[in-house]
Amino acid sequence: MTSNPSSENDPSGMTGIMLPPLMVGIPTCMKYCSHCGKTVVFRIPEGDNRERFLCESCGTIHYQNPRIITGCLAVWEDRVLLCKRAIQPRSGFWTLPAGFLENGETATAGAERETWEEVRAKVAKLELYTMFSLPHISQIYLFYRAQLIDGIFAPGEETDAVSLFHEADIPWDKLAFPVIRDTLQHYFRDRANNEFRVHAADIEISRDIRR
Amino acid sequence: MTSNPSSENDPSGMTGIMLPPLMVGIPTCMKYCSHCGKTVVFRIPEGDNRERFLCESCGTIHYQNPRIITGCLAVWEDRVLLCKRAIQPRSGFWTLPAGFLENGETATAGAERETWEEVRAKVAKLELYTMFSLPHISQIYLFYRAQLIDGIFAPGEETDAVSLFHEADIPWDKLAFPVIRDTLQHYFRDRANNEFRVHAADIEISRDIRR
Repeated sequence: MTSNPSSENDPSGMTGIMLPPLMVGIPTCMKYCSHCGKTVVFRIPEGDNRERFLCESCGTIHYQNPRIITGCLAVWEDRVLLCKRAIQPRSGFWTLPAGFLENGETATAGAERETWEEVRAKVAKLELYTMFSLPHISQIYLFYRAQLIDGIFAPGEETDAVSLFHEADIPWDKLAFPVIRDTLQHYFRDRANNEFRVHAADIEISRDIRR
Repeated sequence: MTSNPSSENDPSGMTGIMLPPLMVGIPTCMKYCSHCGKTVVFRIPEGDNRERFLCESCGTIHYQNPRIITGCLAVWEDRVLLCKRAIQPRSGFWTLPAGFLENGETATAGAERETWEEVRAKVAKLELYTMFSLPHISQIYLFYRAQLIDGIFAPGEETDAVSLFHEADIPWDKLAFPVIRDTLQHYFRDRANNEFRVHAADIEISRDIRR
């Protein structure tokens, strides 16, 4: 997963305008206008209905919106490819190759790129499989089912290990995130029924209780 | 659709660092670091593989990522709800109620909110229906099938008119965007077969030929 520090910052390290507790989804705070360099304020712009960072000097409104993580559930024969994270958060836990979608990139191209970067594997036949909305971290996850092209893989820079797993060998108690567990559970259930469909869910977790 | 000017700016009006032609997906440019107020540069950060706006003074990397538009294909009996846009782009053309997903909001909550804001309608039974990836404008569209709760609707602030349409009356040549046409085409085809499934597609359009 490409690290994207602005969404992983410790809010306690922020020195700019602090966000009210209810706005848990806003990943970054800002102090200066990126257009004119003057200080910004945090208030509801005229004609809007929620607080934004805005510049009273040049009038720019700095919208902040959720980000997309895209990745692959890559399959080889009857096994699925998992990788062990070498970076925080959840270093040492198993995940599916995934990361932030980049500007100018299709969701499938992003999933292929992340699969290459993290597990050095080439994939084909991508089909959208799970979509999760995680408002507490303002992220949308898109996982694609995909086929490994040649069965070749190797750890990328942010990965400690990569391996193909039979269903019976999935390290369920060592998975990095609930969306990984849910995607794998859907997959093995659908495979048993020989009928795959897209699964979509909102996952709402209070900031107080999330890991 | 909530207007979100930073994605609709005319690039020719930018006075900061101009982006190279191939980076068509980046919606905003920046001149000053929003963290420390110093000027930024546009180059590949160490350990990364693509150009970012970064601050050589405080070290902040300013990631920019695609945005999500979420909305509803709302149904009442055998008709679907369309609204006529009162704002640019595509003012006067028909669309589905949709807009930018906000931080801290689930994708379904965003679709419900936009449906309320644009057509003053309440919806239930949301099911993910279409997902489109549009890299040339760095957007992901998520449309949900939904049921109108009480058949009541009215134009919101950014809407000129709202109406329920039978399939035979859809204004196909007056639809605002290709993703609207595609979503409606999927819907009527799936309805005829009495079998709905999620449809996902990447839509790649050269910047030269897009409207």
